[in-house]
Amino acid sequence: MKKLLLIVLLLSVTYVYAEDGSRLWLRFSSNGNAQVTSNIKGATVDIAIRELRKQWIGAGIKLNLTRTKEVNTLGSDGYIINGNRQTGISISSCSETGLLYGAYYLLRWQQTGLGDEINVSESPRYNLRILNHWDNLDRTVERGYAGQSLWEWDNLPSAISPRYEAYARANASIGINGTVLNNVNASPKILSIDNLEKVKILADIFRPYGIKTYLSVNFSSPTELGGLSTSDPLNKDVHLWWKSKVKDIYKLIPDFGGFLVKANSEGLPGPQDFGRTHADGANMLADVLKPYKGIVMWRAFVYNPNDEDRAKQAYQEFVPLDGQFRDNVIIQVKNGPVDFQPREPFSPLFGALKRTSIMPEFQITQEYLGFSNHTAYLATMWKECLDSDTYQQGKGSTVARVTDGSIYPQKYTAIAGVANIGTDVNWCGHHLAQANWYAFGRLAWNHELTAEDIINEWITLTFGASESKANIQNLNPILSKLMLESREAVVTYMMPLGLHHIFAFGHHYGPEPWCDIPGARQDWMPKYYHKADVNGIGFDRSSKGSNAVSQYHSPLSEELDDPATCSDNIILWFHHLSWDYKMKSGRALWNELCYTYDSGVKQARFLQKLWDEVEPYIDAERFREVQSKFKIQTRDAVWWKDGCLLYFQEFSKQPIPYNIERSIHELDKMKSFQMRISNHEKADINQLYNK
Amino acid sequence: MKKLLLIVLLLSVTYVYAEDGSRLWLRFSSNGNAQVTSNIKGATVDIAIRELRKQWIGAGIKLNLTRTKEVNTLGSDGYIINGNRQTGISISSCSETGLLYGAYYLLRWQQTGLGDEINVSESPRYNLRILNHWDNLDRTVERGYAGQSLWEWDNLPSAISPRYEAYARANASIGINGTVLNNVNASPKILSIDNLEKVKILADIFRPYGIKTYLSVNFSSPTELGGLSTSDPLNKDVHLWWKSKVKDIYKLIPDFGGFLVKANSEGLPGPQDFGRTHADGANMLADVLKPYKGIVMWRAFVYNPNDEDRAKQAYQEFVPLDGQFRDNVIIQVKNGPVDFQPREPFSPLFGALKRTSIMPEFQITQEYLGFSNHTAYLATMWKECLDSDTYQQGKGSTVARVTDGSIYPQKYTAIAGVANIGTDVNWCGHHLAQANWYAFGRLAWNHELTAEDIINEWITLTFGASESKANIQNLNPILSKLMLESREAVVTYMMPLGLHHIFAFGHHYGPEPWCDIPGARQDWMPKYYHKADVNGIGFDRSSKGSNAVSQYHSPLSEELDDPATCSDNIILWFHHLSWDYKMKSGRALWNELCYTYDSGVKQARFLQKLWDEVEPYIDAERFREVQSKFKIQTRDAVWWKDGCLLYFQEFSKQPIPYNIERSIHELDKMKSFQMRISNHEKADINQLYNK
Repeated sequence: MKKLLLIVLLLSVTYVYAEDGSRLWLRFSSNGNAQVTSNIKGATVDIAIRELRKQWIGAGIKLNLTRTKEVNTLGSDGYIINGNRQTGISISSCSETGLLYGAYYLLRWQQTGLGDEINVSESPRYNLRILNHWDNLDRTVERGYAGQSLWEWDNLPSAISPRYEAYARANASIGINGTVLNNVNASPKILSIDNLEKVKILADIFRPYGIKTYLSVNFSSPTELGGLSTSDPLNKDVHLWWKSKVKDIYKLIPDFGGFLVKANSEGLPGPQDFGRTHADGANMLADVLKPYKGIVMWRAFVYNPNDEDRAKQAYQEFVPLDGQFRDNVIIQVKNGPVDFQPREPFSPLFGALKRTSIMPEFQITQEYLGFSNHTAYLATMWKECLDSDTYQQGKGSTVARVTDGSIYPQKYTAIAGVANIGTDVNWCGHHLAQANWYAFGRLAWNHELTAEDIINEWITLTFGASESKANIQNLNPILSKLMLESREAVVTYMMPLGLHHIFAFGHHYGPEPWCDIPGARQDWMPKYYHKADVNGIGFDRSSKGSNAVSQYHSPLSEELDDPATCSDNIILWFHHLSWDYKMKSGRALWNELCYTYDSGVKQARFLQKLWDEVEPYIDAERFREVQSKFKIQTRDAVWWKDGCLLYFQEFSKQPIPYNIERSIHELDKMKSFQMRISNHEKADINQLYNK
Repeated sequence: MKKLLLIVLLLSVTYVYAEDGSRLWLRFSSNGNAQVTSNIKGATVDIAIRELRKQWIGAGIKLNLTRTKEVNTLGSDGYIINGNRQTGISISSCSETGLLYGAYYLLRWQQTGLGDEINVSESPRYNLRILNHWDNLDRTVERGYAGQSLWEWDNLPSAISPRYEAYARANASIGINGTVLNNVNASPKILSIDNLEKVKILADIFRPYGIKTYLSVNFSSPTELGGLSTSDPLNKDVHLWWKSKVKDIYKLIPDFGGFLVKANSEGLPGPQDFGRTHADGANMLADVLKPYKGIVMWRAFVYNPNDEDRAKQAYQEFVPLDGQFRDNVIIQVKNGPVDFQPREPFSPLFGALKRTSIMPEFQITQEYLGFSNHTAYLATMWKECLDSDTYQQGKGSTVARVTDGSIYPQKYTAIAGVANIGTDVNWCGHHLAQANWYAFGRLAWNHELTAEDIINEWITLTFGASESKANIQNLNPILSKLMLESREAVVTYMMPLGLHHIFAFGHHYGPEPWCDIPGARQDWMPKYYHKADVNGIGFDRSSKGSNAVSQYHSPLSEELDDPATCSDNIILWFHHLSWDYKMKSGRALWNELCYTYDSGVKQARFLQKLWDEVEPYIDAERFREVQSKFKIQTRDAVWWKDGCLLYFQEFSKQPIPYNIERSIHELDKMKSFQMRISNHEKADINQLYNK
């Protein structure tokens, strides 16, 4: 009996320390003896005190709410930290939230081991740093690969999951201060009183962590939910319906953030259904929200199946409306002009809207980057976008600077990331995908951080606390190399040379360049994008083709227009080239394509090898789980190479160079293979691989 | 209507010339105008005339049955060919069969393009060159991977498949002169009068092609079929039963060849069931067959689940009986002491039986070499065995020379090959596997031919006739390299360093070193053979272990006994070595094992690449079919590497060196994966690979 008890105890201990990834990058805890004082009381500052008490090792810390000019200049989220770990440290801010952010900064500083002396003044580059959840009321998550939606609508408002607060804490620790709870493909029902009362519970939990709650709304809500005969934004009854609805919301959630709207896109309703413009629609909602300081985030992701190049449509739609939007409307623009491909040129809307607030939308969830199976550290992708020069106000008009208020005045500066979070124990379905959530928050705070800075921080915080320093010193160079090269590997085997949108229809997991569904929208078919034929491959967006290049500012437009100057990594995005076209490498296009796919496989294998090399330096649980993911990724890389090369070979009619690893799949089998997954489910890997 | 007709005609033409592999190496046909005369008439010489008329291009040919001393010396299968393609050629032999063999020689000589002048004297090294079919009466084929049994028992004796004669012709063209129609795991029913009348039909078809018919018999036939109370070979009634049965057989088939017997092996009945020896059993049958000049081929493949090393048992059983067998008994010995593994040391029975006729048994069908999915040209394996020096009568006592009558007098010299033939259109389930049927016949005729000689012949005959000479010149060096390296590749990824019998239980297709079936015979379990544990791996057959090495003659026994002199490619067959054992390469055993598996994968990929390179030089049909097979083979090579390394790593507890390609499979999935195939079916590849 005693023996049994001992075994039970041992099992419990093992369970407590299991490295299941649930603790994210917040793993450190000291003895909880730190001296922390504050000159104010409040729910938010209490969290700061609690976090510091639990984790800080060193002399006393003073939290100081103050209105000095120096502090005020930093804004409500900014803070100043001064002092020395041995003698005492003060954190000053003009807001409780600023103090909380300062506390998290200090703890990160401690855990990454930067010394004793600290003198830091910080404020964010974007005021609004927002997660978008594409979560449905039935708890499926569109493009979600980490389990179900965190929001347990059926149990709310009575039952409260402890993960709501854990979620808020994780976000606060990296500076995220807003969350859109529901899918942009929004159900009108989200605005029912029943549901708003549930939303209120979540908002109450998030508030002390400095996080505002937002909702995606369906533009037809007045009709669908309110029973009106129209949802025309200029209709008086519609206006009144929204006014009343917003009033109800603010009664429940006085600091409600506002609405996110996907309108007239992919079949969703919008103002154009009533002959109105996007501005008419957005402004009506903005007017209603204005008294409460609410905002409207209006998505620019709009396109219709017509003769116009899909990549051009958002620009054509919104540039004529520049200047017509209220100051509490922000146009939310995806990083690229199509749809979250592993590599896109930046959207030409950045910098082109000069009198309209504009915010970048990044996708943290890996819809087109291997779901939660492939490792793709996305900070490198987001930095590529943010650092891109639009030239709209001369050299140096980077995407970051045209959206953060540096170049164009914006009442609100904001950035959004589509979350990769679900009910999986490790939150993201893949331990390494946590880095993308982390990196989004850190870049939203400071887009000048490098992808390398961020990953080094994340590795130390995520793997360090339970390990010896020596292990982290060994781990860091290998894992940071892996992470920094990971997205390019995915690009290389999924969309070499700028090929794009050749993903399997609907779920976007594997390759399907051959996909052709009779009667389907042509702009959803891979052939629309790769345009492979006996003459060559690629989408001609040059001045001889759709002329999408003209939407970019000189000298970029000219650079992209000429295949000789257009970067090879995006060349087939902008050009249809003959199979024999001589690439910058000296190789013919077909051979270059073959070599690039092959090098993608090699890169995937290299990442896998790097991961195997970290085995001695981290816990066995996370090592094994991630190791399994890399096996999938390598197999998938080969699948991509084989599927695409064998398919495109039907057009090129040239052999795959013999020094390239031969294909191991049959084209006809790959063509007939269908994964039985929708847009809302995890890929069932067992279904893919029978052995 | 005319257009339709034209299409039908075109389709017919395409069909006629489809390269489906059905024509084997017998594809050449000229205009059928050759002048061929013969000094005798007969069914066999008629075939020779027909073949020459159809295929020979050149001056007239005389077939000359003669009894000159020169010709008589060559025996009934030998022949002399003299003359010049431009002026006339004569083929002389003391038998019609010799003339037929001479005709096939001449045609091969013509098709491989060796010049105008010919002066050749040929006779076979083995008198009996026999195919063993492991075909069951229900038309399943044990270890058959090329469809069903050729023998349509349900349709015989009335309906005659044209493939019976095609089969005989193919065999005759390469010198095979005997066929055992049914499985060594024999049904007693084969000896029923009904079935013997069907066998007679086949024998009648084969006879003109110089092929004798044999049957495998079940030792319990007197009981099972005859209703006797015993099958004791020394029982008078049993003797009479067999005598009567044999009489019936010879009444139907006057030149019937004799019996093949698997007795007291793997659960089959035999003389030991009645306290008698193998000699008692074999001699009783031999006595009954003797008046008809029939023979008994008695298999030495006997072993029982006991404490003795399985590899030693056949030797222990048969050496004490040496000299006790009748002169029309031949002991049929598998090439190695265990069971047709991709590499085995030769069986120690070769040369050890000094006063007993002995014949090698090779397996043409690829039970342990990837079925009809993997390419493994087996002439290299057979040559390795035939050229092995037993040292039994001094240096140079090769397996070939101790079995072909050169060293020990034998009334009958013989060699058997377990056929890889079935109802598949291409006969062997894999176009390249035809080479093994061909090579068996050629080596049985002349074991001094090199594997390279034979494959060059085969390539020219198999791919040449419908192609231009230039293509063959390009094809030959690539394809012969592929073939010559193919078996070693399979050895490398299936049984590196002499690991053996770690195949999946029952069907033997993939890796299953972990297999452990409770209650199963331990000598059928992979663990019995690999003996992996935390200390090391391998079967200790040295003088410190089972001492199987002592069954070999000095100096070989000493060479094998010492791991320092034992060849690395068989070292774990003979030694249990520690994971850290320093190999001849300087690497530790574990690392060596890893590198060897990895190089097996690389070799498989190399073969695949070589095959892809022949695309321009051969027909599209066979190219594509074989290309598909290589995809399977490469995937399987990775499966072998992953399965074995991940499993053995559980014992070695050492990392797989990081410069080796990482595994893409999960050990637990590979362990749980079961192919739903028995010993009698083709592997259903679709079941293995879902995409």
